[in-house]
Amino acid sequence: MIPDELDTPAVMVDVDVLDRNIARMASAMQTRGVKLRPHAKTHKTLEIGARQLAAGAAGLTVATIGEAETFAAGGVTDLFIAYPLWVDARKARRLRLLSETAAVRVGVDSVDAVVEMGRNLGTGVLDISVLIEVDSGHHRSGTMPDNAVNIARAAADAGLAVAGIFTFPGHSYAPGMPEQALQDEDGALAEASSRLLADGFDVQELSGGSTPTSLLGGGSMATELRPGVYVLGDAQQYELQRCALKDIALTIAATVVSRSGPVRGRGRRVVVDSGSKILGSDRAAWATGYGRLPDEPEARIVALSEHHATIEWPDGAALPAYGSRLRVIPNHVCLTMNLADRVSVVRNGSVEDEWEVAARGRNS
Amino acid sequence: MIPDELDTPAVMVDVDVLDRNIARMASAMQTRGVKLRPHAKTHKTLEIGARQLAAGAAGLTVATIGEAETFAAGGVTDLFIAYPLWVDARKARRLRLLSETAAVRVGVDSVDAVVEMGRNLGTGVLDISVLIEVDSGHHRSGTMPDNAVNIARAAADAGLAVAGIFTFPGHSYAPGMPEQALQDEDGALAEASSRLLADGFDVQELSGGSTPTSLLGGGSMATELRPGVYVLGDAQQYELQRCALKDIALTIAATVVSRSGPVRGRGRRVVVDSGSKILGSDRAAWATGYGRLPDEPEARIVALSEHHATIEWPDGAALPAYGSRLRVIPNHVCLTMNLADRVSVVRNGSVEDEWEVAARGRNS
Repeated sequence: MIPDELDTPAVMVDVDVLDRNIARMASAMQTRGVKLRPHAKTHKTLEIGARQLAAGAAGLTVATIGEAETFAAGGVTDLFIAYPLWVDARKARRLRLLSETAAVRVGVDSVDAVVEMGRNLGTGVLDISVLIEVDSGHHRSGTMPDNAVNIARAAADAGLAVAGIFTFPGHSYAPGMPEQALQDEDGALAEASSRLLADGFDVQELSGGSTPTSLLGGGSMATELRPGVYVLGDAQQYELQRCALKDIALTIAATVVSRSGPVRGRGRRVVVDSGSKILGSDRAAWATGYGRLPDEPEARIVALSEHHATIEWPDGAALPAYGSRLRVIPNHVCLTMNLADRVSVVRNGSVEDEWEVAARGRNS
Repeated sequence: MIPDELDTPAVMVDVDVLDRNIARMASAMQTRGVKLRPHAKTHKTLEIGARQLAAGAAGLTVATIGEAETFAAGGVTDLFIAYPLWVDARKARRLRLLSETAAVRVGVDSVDAVVEMGRNLGTGVLDISVLIEVDSGHHRSGTMPDNAVNIARAAADAGLAVAGIFTFPGHSYAPGMPEQALQDEDGALAEASSRLLADGFDVQELSGGSTPTSLLGGGSMATELRPGVYVLGDAQQYELQRCALKDIALTIAATVVSRSGPVRGRGRRVVVDSGSKILGSDRAAWATGYGRLPDEPEARIVALSEHHATIEWPDGAALPAYGSRLRVIPNHVCLTMNLADRVSVVRNGSVEDEWEVAARGRNS
């Protein structure tokens, strides 16, 4: 299952599973008549973005100007930075350059931000427009829906084109919450857009979506959706019942380096060499551990340090020998990709390519 | 305080604070007559390792062969891989190459591992020896102290030179625990070494230490200590009262991008652009949040996503304006350095250099 030539720990992407995930989401969105703009912060990889676009994606979503620069350099011409950017003079210079090769949309969630952005971007022929972020219940960034029109007016005053509204229903990341989050997304988009329309704005885009909500289907008034994680899958999506183990394209190849036989009463533990520096250390309150083992689903990763994952092995299952190679699924794949300089592309158990994680670390 | 030319988020290292930390630890170890072998997994940076060696460090500690390769290529000639490596044929090839330019010590914690390592390294003139890891109470890897002699015998049978014993008292990372952890370290080293000595082994090295225990001083029987985090400091060490805010050399420059005025009852929150992809997402059960703000010590980072840190601002303190630039201290600096390709080196508020994090991502 783990190609022999790989030294551990190593990040493996099963390209058949990846392509199946890309096709499934593309087809679902096409059936519903909704544009798909996958969030590329999940993979940060030109080859995966190209596959998403080839399957019909309308463009890519990114979180930072740095990610946008990477994908634009790779030939992507339609990019939405779905983040409430503070466009000071430094970021304005970069946005202007970016707009020379790509149509760029930028998130805003305050009057202050559009005033600053308008002043620093200046006037001239720039293919840059803004989407106003509204809070649909995640309570992170985003203005309240009834305030969106004030930001739209300020944007127009600042000389910025208003393309529409966006929201991230991030409270979908909890057991039993995706349906509620989808309803909240709809409500927030509806209220904000009706106020903008009443005020004379042409609301072209209502952008929503997250991996947990995007495949629920039905009822959404969004014109485009921005799921990210679906393309690779991870332990969070599995534990939220948003994907099966067989849908998870990214796994870490790891080796059993220690067994905790010595500690009395903890004889069913093994330690593998995939720690927080390759898996990432996100752990939601509802997670069963720091990741999962696809080939031993009842095992639990009970502790994680930089280079050690401590696994409680299920009763009755044979404890793996020292040196055994195991696959580990990270909790949150966006962090895993951001830790890897490159990933091994695997098909039918053999390495067929290596992809650079080109936008890794592009935080600004 | 934040140099004007830096775009945010950005990793800043204050070189005066760094040098003070290096000098303080070097001086304390010299006074006690204990060798200092700083753990370079914290910084992964050739320039910082060189400063530690110039201040008298006996060599560097690393966690992986990849880190060792990076520092050896940078001219370091004495390296201890303080990890229970499983030296299969792939890793044996790399260790042999490494031993051509550096004296290499490797951790082991099982008979199986020394048998595998002996078989794959083969015989010949290699400057490689092993240190046996014992568990002093952290209960991660390491054998029980009374079993170390069995591993030493197996190592000798496998043709491996046994240099001594090592332990990591990682249970020092909790409030009130450093003193106990130091006692446990001493006890484990004492028991393991007395058994090896009784069995005729020449125990040259008793290697211990962690940042929380290393400066406690007194009583330790260790011949060398391996603290890592002390060189940069972080919010964990501050909250464990192991350093003051002024001792923290690494901070993240961040910008206020959103304020949660819109959410009723949460009007004292701001969002900055330093999320888990630059800070890392470690959060111990006893931590006050996802990091600290040195210039607003009562503020709490209550939520963290990939590019958003949500900060609860203290009552009575003026809420920072949109676009304000703030400094953030990460919880666990080893993860922060492993996320950065390079860091800005700051002195007296000006950027004077940029260092590459050369061993970033070298997990295998």
